[in-house]
Amino acid sequence: MYNDLNWSPAEKKIARRAYDAALQAALAKVMAEFKRRANAAATPTEMWEVGDYLRQQGKEIDELFDYRYSQLPLVFARLIREGLLDETLLAGLSEDKRRIIRSILSFAAK
Amino acid sequence: MYNDLNWSPAEKKIARRAYDAALQAALAKVMAEFKRRANAAATPTEMWEVGDYLRQQGKEIDELFDYRYSQLPLVFARLIREGLLDETLLAGLSEDKRRIIRSILSFAAK
Repeated sequence: MYNDLNWSPAEKKIARRAYDAALQAALAKVMAEFKRRANAAATPTEMWEVGDYLRQQGKEIDELFDYRYSQLPLVFARLIREGLLDETLLAGLSEDKRRIIRSILSFAAK
Repeated sequence: MYNDLNWSPAEKKIARRAYDAALQAALAKVMAEFKRRANAAATPTEMWEVGDYLRQQGKEIDELFDYRYSQLPLVFARLIREGLLDETLLAGLSEDKRRIIRSILSFAAK
C-alpha cells in the first residue's frame, strides 16, 4: 500500500514503540471489559457470550495490528482514531509519513 | 444404537429429569471453573486461554448431551462416569435399560 516510503532506523524504532504502546492499550481495554463481563456473568448464556466476546476481540486485534511497513500509516491512523494511540508518539517520523496518516484520518472523519 | 428400546411416557419423564439435572450440573461445573480462571487471569495470554477453555467445554457439552432415545443409555453411562449424574435418578427406568447402562459403565471401567 505504502511501499514507496523509506523508514530510517530511528523511524523504525519510533514506529515500534508507538505500535507496542497501542497494542498494550488495546489489550488492557479488552482485559478490563473481559473482567467486567466475566464478573457479571450469572447464566450459562452470559458465560458463553464472554467466549464470543474474546473470540471477536482476538480477531479484531489480529486484523488491526499489522506491522508491515507498507501498512503502518493505515494502522497508525486507525489506532489514533480508535483512541489507542496518542499521535504525539509519532513525533520523529518524517513529515511525508505524518501527512499521509493525517490525510487518512481526515478522509475517515468525513 | 439402542433403537430397539421402548420408552414409556413415565420413563421419558424420568429420563428428561435426569438429563436436565446432569446438564445443570455440567453447566454449573463449567461456570465455577470459568469464574475461577477469569478471576485469576492476569495476562492477555491467560485471558485468551479462558476463551479457549469455554470453546472446548462448549464443544464437549454439545457432544455429550444428545437426547435421542437411541443414544440415551450411552449418554447416561457417560454422565454417571463423569460424576454429573446420580444413578439413583434413573430409578423407574426398565431393568433392561438400567442393565445396558451398567454394562456400558463396567465395560468402560476395565
